[in-house]
Amino acid sequence: MTVSITRLNASQSDFDSSLAKLLAWDDSVDHQVNESVRHILHEVKTRGDAAVLEFTEKFDRLTIASVAELEMSHDRLQKALKNIPGDQRVALEQAAERIRSYHEHQSQTSWQYQEEDGTVLGQKVTPLDRAGLYVPGGKAAYPSSVLMNAIPAKVAGVSEVVMVVPTPDGVVNDMVLAAAAIAGVDRVFTVGGAQAVAALAYGTETIPSVDKIVGPGNIFVATAKREVFGTVGIDMIAGPSEILVICDGETDPDWIAMDLFSQAEHDEQAQSILISPDASFLDAVEASINKLLPTMERAEIIEASISSRAALIQVADLSEAAAVSNRIAPEHLELSVEDPEALMAEIRHAGAIFMGRYTAEALGDYCAGPNHVLPTSGTARFSSPLGVYDFQKRSSIIGFSASGADRMGRVASVLARGEGLTAHARSAEYRVKK
Amino acid sequence: MTVSITRLNASQSDFDSSLAKLLAWDDSVDHQVNESVRHILHEVKTRGDAAVLEFTEKFDRLTIASVAELEMSHDRLQKALKNIPGDQRVALEQAAERIRSYHEHQSQTSWQYQEEDGTVLGQKVTPLDRAGLYVPGGKAAYPSSVLMNAIPAKVAGVSEVVMVVPTPDGVVNDMVLAAAAIAGVDRVFTVGGAQAVAALAYGTETIPSVDKIVGPGNIFVATAKREVFGTVGIDMIAGPSEILVICDGETDPDWIAMDLFSQAEHDEQAQSILISPDASFLDAVEASINKLLPTMERAEIIEASISSRAALIQVADLSEAAAVSNRIAPEHLELSVEDPEALMAEIRHAGAIFMGRYTAEALGDYCAGPNHVLPTSGTARFSSPLGVYDFQKRSSIIGFSASGADRMGRVASVLARGEGLTAHARSAEYRVKK
Repeated sequence: MTVSITRLNASQSDFDSSLAKLLAWDDSVDHQVNESVRHILHEVKTRGDAAVLEFTEKFDRLTIASVAELEMSHDRLQKALKNIPGDQRVALEQAAERIRSYHEHQSQTSWQYQEEDGTVLGQKVTPLDRAGLYVPGGKAAYPSSVLMNAIPAKVAGVSEVVMVVPTPDGVVNDMVLAAAAIAGVDRVFTVGGAQAVAALAYGTETIPSVDKIVGPGNIFVATAKREVFGTVGIDMIAGPSEILVICDGETDPDWIAMDLFSQAEHDEQAQSILISPDASFLDAVEASINKLLPTMERAEIIEASISSRAALIQVADLSEAAAVSNRIAPEHLELSVEDPEALMAEIRHAGAIFMGRYTAEALGDYCAGPNHVLPTSGTARFSSPLGVYDFQKRSSIIGFSASGADRMGRVASVLARGEGLTAHARSAEYRVKK
Repeated sequence: MTVSITRLNASQSDFDSSLAKLLAWDDSVDHQVNESVRHILHEVKTRGDAAVLEFTEKFDRLTIASVAELEMSHDRLQKALKNIPGDQRVALEQAAERIRSYHEHQSQTSWQYQEEDGTVLGQKVTPLDRAGLYVPGGKAAYPSSVLMNAIPAKVAGVSEVVMVVPTPDGVVNDMVLAAAAIAGVDRVFTVGGAQAVAALAYGTETIPSVDKIVGPGNIFVATAKREVFGTVGIDMIAGPSEILVICDGETDPDWIAMDLFSQAEHDEQAQSILISPDASFLDAVEASINKLLPTMERAEIIEASISSRAALIQVADLSEAAAVSNRIAPEHLELSVEDPEALMAEIRHAGAIFMGRYTAEALGDYCAGPNHVLPTSGTARFSSPLGVYDFQKRSSIIGFSASGADRMGRVASVLARGEGLTAHARSAEYRVKK
């Protein structure tokens, strides 16, 4: 089979609109999904455990007597750690260690400073009390996702990380539980879907409410997270995964083809884009794609993704490649070039930047250290990878001395009266010396 | 008139449920508002300037020929700076200087580190390209809000700050424009409502699209911001303003009453709470409230807020006060006590903490330096004051050496195969030495 891939050239007069069309992605949510999610949220909010039991019986076909039975013991997690093959356990532990070590660099500390008159200003950094981690169950079980979401929370100092993971028909994934044990997850409930999100947001008799819910999930989970935002914090609602590779034409085209596949195999909506100033290299990668595709286990998904959403883009030079990349603001950006440092200086927006020919994006998904939860669909223009900072918050500290309050009370009084807020003015004026 | 104020005691058996009832706040949005906002967003997204003109004519009763006429020149802003009274100008400049100086402490810098085998990991911090700032027009004109939203963006390094402010019936507020000039706002358009949010989110022929929209607004503006979230970033959707004062009973009760009024005067939904272990002090503050209320310019709003949403809460001691405060996670927290440092150590969640008897909350609203845009409705459990960090984002940096890719490729391969993602595995394996 020969897969047809969109080819663009940045010098085309219609390049802007072609690029916009390529990037467009329909994120509208079916009305029926919205209604169903709202119903589940309302039921769990008002009826707690009883509703969680009913929905778990209905959607996961589990018949249990109480939500307490859905909690997994620490012994069960430790057993999972023993059950999995030794090489997987070692790999999980190595990945966890690198993720922990990288994220420790993100820790923020409180600070304050004193002014001449004794006035103190500062910022106090504190962890969230409790974080909820959603982990998808069933066939798409991602232990790496457990590490990436739970470890930053623990590094931030969150006292209790509560994980929810559905076990449809009772199917348990030992690698996911092993990852939870390694990451230091505090409690695990085998519940999923919108009912799990509702339980974490509102709390039930058995499942504690949390301050923030993170982690990937299907459309029901994503919709539920969007609905409970405000009651709790949430991470970004992720769109399909994307990779953008900028290559100078000197990397093995098979490597680049496989890097593109590594996004494409996620799902049909995933987007893989290659930009190069070398037209013959684009041809070579296209040939590699066609050569390698039949050898792939997930060939069908890859083909659907590559033919509907991938593109090979020719540019005049690497600077133009950086300019196009900045317009896309990709989730993953590979700089597969001779001098990645020089090119990085021109990059303004990207979730993660993979430097040089040896840095396959897949390394970042598992064990490089940085987080694999990254802003998608161009949101890297204004948002960041998941990090320790997502599990900490700040409080401003303001402490005026008597003379500071005297001096600044006068300023506040003028401005408050200018805004017509006289209680503000008088509150400040009480602290002004007569 | 005697205003009736809710009185609670933390030792009551029904304290938890009474507190929950006190804090409950209905944030549901009228169906009609949602529909109207969606219509406006769709029209501006698809018809650009033409739709902006139509809605501005309809809602602000302005008849102009083009959106370009809605842009205010830099000369006009400078003229506003000359128009306002001298004391207001000086006060705005002093406030701006303190806000800038405080926020400079929040700047984040890029970092990276190298491992033994030459692998480089890090995080690159970059500013947003463009930020949009919504400023309400009409009677509730808040120049302080211009300073608080624009200055952190400029400190972050945002190249272009675009401000929108409605001028219903052509009424322009010079103090707001003067604040824009002082804060370094780059462009100002006199357009408001959902149409202004839509223009900033999608861009029109004349108004540039931005990466993030911040700033307060009415229900139409808040609903529009919620809808465009994802296309652009937004700040928190604010609920009613709140203050929580913890007092040991030794502060002048008139001061405390006025501090409570300074929130209550914002609107009927604002919430003012006082906690003290001293029951007679609660009585004294209640007496002060009744004494001072008739002298207030905004007495009607204050009375409505105090009688419907305020509370005086008696606790056993200051530690219990801190515990109750942590459950509320207040926007503004005054520690009007002898040793505020000791009490602060027990505070886990608050937008801003005002230390000691001299630190009136109102100082923080205008000129202390820290931001007055703070998490409301208990969201201080998981979110932070507006800051420089809201106008910067991070990109992970991953650069593997050949030997690093060899070592880590093996780990990634095991984990990717464990997750059934063989393109990921093969992409990593290409970089592993044979």
